[in-house]
Order: sequence, then structure tokens, then C-alpha cells
Amino acid sequence: MIFALDRDSHIPLYAQIATQVREMISRGALKMGDRLPANRELAKSLGVNRSTVTTAYDELMADGLISSRVGSGTYVSAVPASGSRSAERELRRPSPMPWGALLADQKRDKWLSGMTEAIVRKDTVSLAYALPAAELFPVDDFRRSVDRVLRREARGLLQLGTSDGYAPLQQYLASYMAHLGVAVEPGEILITNGCQQSLDLIRQILVRPGEEVVLENPTYPGAISVFCGQQSKYISVPVGDRGLDLDLLEDLLAQRRPKLIYVVPSFHNPTGITMDLASRQRLIELAAMYRVPIIEDDIYGELRYDGVSLPSLKSLDEYGLVIYINSFSKIGFPGLRIGWIIAPRIVIDYLDAVKQRTDLHASLLSQAAISEFVRHGLLAKHIKRCRKAYSERRDAMLAALARYFPDEAVWNRPEGGMAIWVRLPQSLNASQVLIQSMEQRVAFSPGEYFYSCSPQPNTLRLAFTMAEPSSIEEAIKRLGAVIKARLVSTKRRIEFSPKAAVKALV
Amino acid sequence: MIFALDRDSHIPLYAQIATQVREMISRGALKMGDRLPANRELAKSLGVNRSTVTTAYDELMADGLISSRVGSGTYVSAVPASGSRSAERELRRPSPMPWGALLADQKRDKWLSGMTEAIVRKDTVSLAYALPAAELFPVDDFRRSVDRVLRREARGLLQLGTSDGYAPLQQYLASYMAHLGVAVEPGEILITNGCQQSLDLIRQILVRPGEEVVLENPTYPGAISVFCGQQSKYISVPVGDRGLDLDLLEDLLAQRRPKLIYVVPSFHNPTGITMDLASRQRLIELAAMYRVPIIEDDIYGELRYDGVSLPSLKSLDEYGLVIYINSFSKIGFPGLRIGWIIAPRIVIDYLDAVKQRTDLHASLLSQAAISEFVRHGLLAKHIKRCRKAYSERRDAMLAALARYFPDEAVWNRPEGGMAIWVRLPQSLNASQVLIQSMEQRVAFSPGEYFYSCSPQPNTLRLAFTMAEPSSIEEAIKRLGAVIKARLVSTKRRIEFSPKAAVKALV
Repeated sequence: MIFALDRDSHIPLYAQIATQVREMISRGALKMGDRLPANRELAKSLGVNRSTVTTAYDELMADGLISSRVGSGTYVSAVPASGSRSAERELRRPSPMPWGALLADQKRDKWLSGMTEAIVRKDTVSLAYALPAAELFPVDDFRRSVDRVLRREARGLLQLGTSDGYAPLQQYLASYMAHLGVAVEPGEILITNGCQQSLDLIRQILVRPGEEVVLENPTYPGAISVFCGQQSKYISVPVGDRGLDLDLLEDLLAQRRPKLIYVVPSFHNPTGITMDLASRQRLIELAAMYRVPIIEDDIYGELRYDGVSLPSLKSLDEYGLVIYINSFSKIGFPGLRIGWIIAPRIVIDYLDAVKQRTDLHASLLSQAAISEFVRHGLLAKHIKRCRKAYSERRDAMLAALARYFPDEAVWNRPEGGMAIWVRLPQSLNASQVLIQSMEQRVAFSPGEYFYSCSPQPNTLRLAFTMAEPSSIEEAIKRLGAVIKARLVSTKRRIEFSPKAAVKALV
Repeated sequence: MIFALDRDSHIPLYAQIATQVREMISRGALKMGDRLPANRELAKSLGVNRSTVTTAYDELMADGLISSRVGSGTYVSAVPASGSRSAERELRRPSPMPWGALLADQKRDKWLSGMTEAIVRKDTVSLAYALPAAELFPVDDFRRSVDRVLRREARGLLQLGTSDGYAPLQQYLASYMAHLGVAVEPGEILITNGCQQSLDLIRQILVRPGEEVVLENPTYPGAISVFCGQQSKYISVPVGDRGLDLDLLEDLLAQRRPKLIYVVPSFHNPTGITMDLASRQRLIELAAMYRVPIIEDDIYGELRYDGVSLPSLKSLDEYGLVIYINSFSKIGFPGLRIGWIIAPRIVIDYLDAVKQRTDLHASLLSQAAISEFVRHGLLAKHIKRCRKAYSERRDAMLAALARYFPDEAVWNRPEGGMAIWVRLPQSLNASQVLIQSMEQRVAFSPGEYFYSCSPQPNTLRLAFTMAEPSSIEEAIKRLGAVIKARLVSTKRRIEFSPKAAVKALV
């Protein structure tokens, strides 16, 4: 075997050795079953370290070209398939692509479809999704808006746009944000494909792999997906009665260096809790002191049914540290996938570049459809209608809960949003309740889905937006019966459990 | 100063020290100007390493709370702002968020807007973009399709969808791919927001930061954005007359371990080159031998004006190693942002999960609009119309190039696609030509934009899709005049340059 090693090359010596052995096999200079020199022997003759030869052999072994038998050395065990330039090569087809190995350590995370699969049955009352009621969609107004804007500017909308967004929609959002008490310059708005993408874009400019982000616990599962795995790590801070536990957050900020704090201050998902004004102010001061940006997710902000509106973190922020995200997916149309980010100009500039790399820009048809719809005051009208309907549904659910749920269960009365958060007695597991409840044709979301750590299996989220008050009452009645039955059987189990009996004695 | 260090805590000792000093400053136990104990002194009294105290002090210094003066020790130099729990704290406002520092090492990459900014003037003939001609958009057919589908299923389209895509569009694409010689199961298709997103999603499942990807050089700039910077590294392989240089690729595959090969085999962007059948087969065999997946970008595939259609890599692939991407952005409507990925089911499963994390799903309105449009055979009709118009425009450009460009310039005759690739004499710089050409109201893309390394400044891409034949002729005439003038002045400069004179003597 003759090797020609180039010590000045940027190609490592082991790779040169491996390549040359591969070529010898390819052109037939080494044949199936031929014995290769021992590591030590080859290393000596080439004047390289033994480990260099070992690495080269390991690589060839990983490719399946050579194999070693204990005590008897290393042999050529395969010949590379056709495709090399050598004419004398043997023809041997490689096997199909080993995708499993290439993909194996990637995290697969499909909470959305996981949830969907459970709730496809038409005959089931769904309290599972925090989504708008489809029957309230103003479909005729919307269709007319689309038709109008397509008559006016179809050529522009079908052509490529700019990554920051459709200008008329940006202008509308600037005035909408002013109405919410946030003064925004045009260059401080980026249109995205909804809050999910907004989170993913913000992560890309502010968090490197391995860096930490503060999440509320429980929180929106889509946020957990964005900040877990290879992309970043998260620190979970519990949500108490007034929202994020700020005392704990303060300790944490003093000890660690998170890159972001993600919060849903109004009608928090899944708990429905709203941070009061003092907490909002303190959160901003903490973030300012420790120089940590906040992502404020205001997606439920407009869905307040009673009580007094509170200023957004963004409107309280004098430091320019809040990145505000919102979308049309709760107040309007999730299928259109349109959201927006408000942030200081420099942040938007970076986000814009990432948005472009990610998918160039959001659908112009979706953007223009919404823009035309809102320009005619139709969104305001629609939100008003939704507030009325959802508040009735919430009240129907609260009344039914009081009537049909066991005394041991506790829940809150959210002033807005889309769901009620229920805590069952510790002995009950909501996922197990769901199995029986599905038999009774009632679907809901077990609380576990929403925890970034320490899931509490006795919690559940009951969304009230997608069913009529009468269906809600009936569904809660059936669900209450399931829970009561399980509670009785659990109690019985505990009472008669020998273990519990022993514990009771001790 | 009294410290309470907990040696059993998971919080590092330096962090405990820093936190406690911070608290002492907050509650006024340490005041502005107070001197802190020297490192050695404090380390000794606490029984910790000196480096522990140094790290704690460094952190407090980075926060601006303490500062040290050479030779005189370390002092409290600031008091944290309000927001801490202590009541006695001083009120001092933190400064605005230092975004520049947080964002500084992120790569900003806005080639799209960079290109757009140069070409906003209405009076300019644009040969810069490889985009469809807006005047050919079948706007009435499209508007009627949207109206029809919204009348039929608006409620479903405005509601949240599933991340894999709108089922009728997936079904259409399965039959469309069959027509292109690729048999696809429904579970092997993922709908995306276009090829840019497809690339970004594929990167996320197959390439870890620091791993390498093979790119053609030159190539689509959006691919360079996806695979550069923190996301991955790329290896550039030159594109020759028959496409990607396969000899070089083979050497490279033998020596390195790229995770992907990205190619545009038909009407390559920007060179217009199409890989012949033998090259396609060899590329697949190479990839199979070295177990490297190929991304085949077939975005221009349908835009063939003459010559014989070649099978896609996907249709030649017996190993299941090709991930095929395509979109409606060249044959139809870039503004809708709809593309698709065809890959083995396991790959689609992973991509689907990333798609969900990224933005839940593509706009249902965009997907349904296209689906309705294609179902009525309108896309086939539209493609036919585009082929006719673009082929006339290409021919007009080729004729004008032959007539008005200097003899020293060379270009190819692409059988399809959207642009002609021109190589000027080495002495000319296309970016400089662009400045003068813009004065003559002609825009084009300097070739530099498309190089992932070793840019050749004398190249340019002339897109022929967005202007009428007569405008193309006029534009090429003006551009030819600019180039000829520069060529004359460059020659004169070289002739009279003392340096050149010296060189000529040597």
C-alpha cells in the first residue's frame, strides 16, 4: 500500500488516509477480504500517530468498507458502490438512506396534532381549544373584503412583497396600537405569521443554543416548543394568583442570566389570570434592573368581558425593553396566520432579516384581506360580538361548574380570555378523566400540556369559546358526573387500600 | 459585611456572594462610595477561593454596581433601581435597554431588501428579479377562485388548520407530482410558505450548528442566508457548464462529512444551466455512496421553453435520499407564499413538527385559493401562457445581447428559467456597471449577490421575465452602451497605467 500524505494540506491526515484506502478499494487495488496493515505498523511506516490511523480506520468502518475481527486484524469488507470515477469498480447498490440515524436525536414535538387527534369526533363538545367560535366568523363581510381588495390590487398582492409586511396593514396596526396606549413608529412593526412565528423569530435574534429563557409555568405549549431542545433552555417560574411569581423571578434574575422573559400578562393561557398594575410595574422594573428583555404576549388582551382594562407592559415600559407580540388568531382568524411584533427599531431590523431568511414574508393575500376588513371597521364590530358571546359562554360554564362539579374542585373566574382553569383534588388525574369524558363526548385539555416542568396532573383547562351555552351546560354536567364518579372510586380505593390503612395507623 | 453562604445549594458560591452584595447595596447596608473588602481578604474570611470572589466582583462590575480604581480598591459605584423588595432602597432609573450589545454578534442579512432598494424607480426597466410577470397574472380567474372557495368553506379556512397543510392542496400536489414522474403518498408532502421556508425547515432537522452543507457556487442567495452564520457552515462547489462540478464534489465527499447537498438541477439560479441526465444519475450515486441527502430545488422546472424535459433527481432516486422542494412562486404567485416539500415519511414527520413550532401552518386562505385555482385547470393554462411569453422575452434578450453587447462578453442560452448569465471581461465590475446603468434606467443583478465564496465581480444576471420584448431590447441596448464605454475607458486606463507598463516590460 502506497500512501501520498500531504502534511501542508488543510485536510487532516486521518482523512487523507481514509480517502486513499477508500480509493484503493474502489479501483480494486484492495479487494474484499484483503487484510489491512495493523494500526501500529501503518502508523510507523507513515510516520504518524497511532491515533491518526485509528481515526481513519474508524471512519472506514463506519462506512462499512472495512471490519475487524478480534485477534485477527482488519479486513476489507465491502466495496463502494458505482458512482466513483474509477472504471474497474464493482457495482454494488448502497442500501436506502438511513434517515432514522440522521434524524434520531432531533426532538419531535407535535402537541398541536396530539391535541387534534383526540378531538376529531363531530359528536363531541369541544372544550379543548382556546380558539374563536367559527359560527361567529363574519364570513360574508370577510369574503366581500377579499373580493374588493383583489379587484383593486390583485397584481400587487400576487407578486413578491417585502419582509416587514404589507404597508396598509402596518399603518392600521400603528393606529390600533396608539388606541391601546402604545405610540409606534412605522419602522417598529413587523408582520409575522402569528405569535408562534413571532416567538421563534425573537428567539433567533436574542437566544443562542444553551442560553436560558424565563417561561411562566404553566404556559402556552407553543412557547415551550420554541424554547426547548437544541434551541435554548428554559427556567420555569410558577404563575400564582397575581400572575408570574415576581419574588421568585427576582431571586432568579439575581442568580442567573436569562436572555428573555416570556409572559402573557392578560388572561394568561392556560390559567386565565391577569397581572395587576402593581405587578406589571414591578416586572418592568425588575427586567430593567437586570437588563433582561420581556416578550409580552397580548393575544387575549382584547377579550375582556368585565372589570377594568389594564395598561399593557409595552405602554408602561420607559426603558424600551418590552417586545410586544399579538395576532389576529384569537380576536379574528387563526387560519390566516397573521400576527405582529412591536419593538424598538433596531430589534425590528434584526427580526426583519430573520423573517426574510425564514420565509421572505407573510402571505400578502392574508395580510391584505385582514387590512381591508379592519379598514372598514369590521374587526371592531366583530370583537364586540365575540365579547358578548364569549362572556355568555363563560358565565354559562361558571354556573354549570358551580352546579355540577364536586365541592373539592376549585376554579377561578377569569375576566376575559377563552378558558377556565380547574384544579381537581390531588387524587385525580385529568388525562384519565379525559378518557372517560371522551366516552361521554366531552373533550377538554388536561393541564399537563401546559407545564414546562412539574406538571400538575390534577389540573385541566376548559375552553368556553367554541360551544353554545346550552352545550356547555350539558358538557359540564357530563364531565362533572365523570369526575364525581372517579372521586368516589378513588376515595373508596384509598379507604380500603392496605397501604393507606397502614399509613393511617402510623 | 455578613454573608450567609449555602455550600449545598445548586447556586454557585460566586453567585451567592454577588447576590448578597447586590442586596446590601439595595437595602442601603452598603452605600455609594463604600469600599468593599479586597478579594484576598474576603476570600479568606469566607473560606472560598480568590477566584470565586473575583468572579462575583466581575459580575457586579458588569452590572455597574461596583467599580475598582487601580491601587485603591473596589467601591460601590451605583445603586440598583427600584423594583427590589427592599423598602429602603434608593430610586435610580436604569438607562434604556442596551439592545446594540444584546444583538451585536447576530448576522444581519437583508439581500432581498438590499436588492429592492436599488430598483424602486418606476421609470426603470427591471432585469433584476427572477420573478413572474405581474401583467400575466390571471387576476380575474384567481379572484373568482377565491370567491368560490370562500363561499363554500370560509368557516373552515378562517379557523386554525393542521401543520402538514390543506388536504385538497396536498391531494392536488400528489397528482401533480405523479404527472412529473414522482409517485407520492399523501404522508410524504408538507405544505410550506415557499422554498425559502422549506430550506430553513430542512436545515433545522438535519444540520446542527457548525455542521457543513454543500452549496453550488454561485447559487440562490436565500440558500446562503439559511446555511450561513450561526446555523451551519457551507462548502461551495463551483457550477460548470453541466452544473455542479461532480469531480470536485466527489473529492469533497470523500474528505468531509457534509450533512446536505443543495442543488437546483434545472435552470439553475443564477446561471440558467441544466444538469444533463448522466450528471443527475452520477450525483445520486455519489450521494448514495457517501450517505448524504440531496435537496433538489425544482422551482424553475416547469419553465422550459425548448429542448427535452429531464427527469427530476427525485424521480431517479432509488435510495430515498432526495428531498424535493418546489413552490408556486415562479410558475404562479410569489405573494401567496406557498411551497411544498416531498420526502420520505419519516422526514416529513420531523419537518411537520418543526413547521408547527415555527408558525403552526401556512395561510389557509393562500392554500385554498391556489387549490381552487389549480383544480379548475387554471394553473396549467397559466403556465402555458407564461412559457410562451417568457420564451419570447428570452429570445428578445438573446438577440439584443448579440447585437448590443461587446464581443468580449459571453453568455449562455438557457432552455428555460428566468434569466441569462453574462460574463463580462475581467476588467469590468458589474456593481460599478449597475451604478451607470441605473442612470440609464436599467436595473439588473450583479453576479456577486449569488456567490457563497470567491465572487466574480465581472458577472451579472439578466432576468427576462418582467419586461416586454421591446423594453428588453431597449434596455440591453442602453446597458450594452454603458458596458462598451466602460470597456473602452478601462482599456485606456490599462494601456496608460504605469504599473501595467512596468508589468508589460517584465
